[in-house]
Amino acid sequence: MKRLLGGPGTMSGLLLRLGQCAFGGASIGLMVTSRGFSGYTAFCYLVASMGFQVLWSFALACLDIYALNRKRDLQNPILVSLFVVGDWVTSTLSLAAACSSAGIVVLYARDLNFCTIHKSLPCERFQISVAMAFITWVLTAMSSHVMFWILASV
Amino acid sequence: MKRLLGGPGTMSGLLLRLGQCAFGGASIGLMVTSRGFSGYTAFCYLVASMGFQVLWSFALACLDIYALNRKRDLQNPILVSLFVVGDWVTSTLSLAAACSSAGIVVLYARDLNFCTIHKSLPCERFQISVAMAFITWVLTAMSSHVMFWILASV
Repeated sequence: MKRLLGGPGTMSGLLLRLGQCAFGGASIGLMVTSRGFSGYTAFCYLVASMGFQVLWSFALACLDIYALNRKRDLQNPILVSLFVVGDWVTSTLSLAAACSSAGIVVLYARDLNFCTIHKSLPCERFQISVAMAFITWVLTAMSSHVMFWILASV
Repeated sequence: MKRLLGGPGTMSGLLLRLGQCAFGGASIGLMVTSRGFSGYTAFCYLVASMGFQVLWSFALACLDIYALNRKRDLQNPILVSLFVVGDWVTSTLSLAAACSSAGIVVLYARDLNFCTIHKSLPCERFQISVAMAFITWVLTAMSSHVMFWILASV
């Protein structure tokens, strides 16, 4: 199997995973501390999806640290298949969550102008949380493509 | 290069492309005939994204028909790279458009209950259009994965 930048058990792979955890965690933190977020299905879904993403990325980051410390090779077809499926599922869920939340944020901020009319709405927090979710998705999509490439090039 | 179900220049590939065109076209048709859709950024984005998807799928369907008629092989690395990039971009745009529109549809139908309060809103049309967009995305994701697999297994 080819060794690629961002692959499992490499330093770049570990950094990608830690980035996913950090941005995902920030997105959750900002969302759950925004008043009234639980009234919106899309925002609840964002929190759930980012929670799943953080758990998955954290587990793989731990595996990367273990592999780097013990100099183990994680690139066997069965493990990589598992990573591919997991990464594809989490990245699709993250994109879906980020986009559905972005749809509502744009509706409130631009189309209905609710953010200027109802000053009590924490629009800025929603916006930053959605932006963090998009960054998490970009990092996961990178991992996902590297894994798929490694698997396909066996 | 491996020959896979759904690859370029095969009958299954052509059927996938025609399916993408049909569902994408249905999604656009339903959305543009819904009253007041243009007031929503996400719905306009859905129409634009599905339009791009239909154009891309139609072009590749024509190429498949040409290859099937003339018995040409489309599986050379440069062509497949182009298909991979195009499919990945269109499928990501389609998912983003479907999800952002779904966010608004769920907000109106469930969270704010606008669909039962404001009877004039064409909620059902919006819902069916979004469902069609999701089906288009599923078909494009299938094409995209097949192309990526073919490219990576060169």
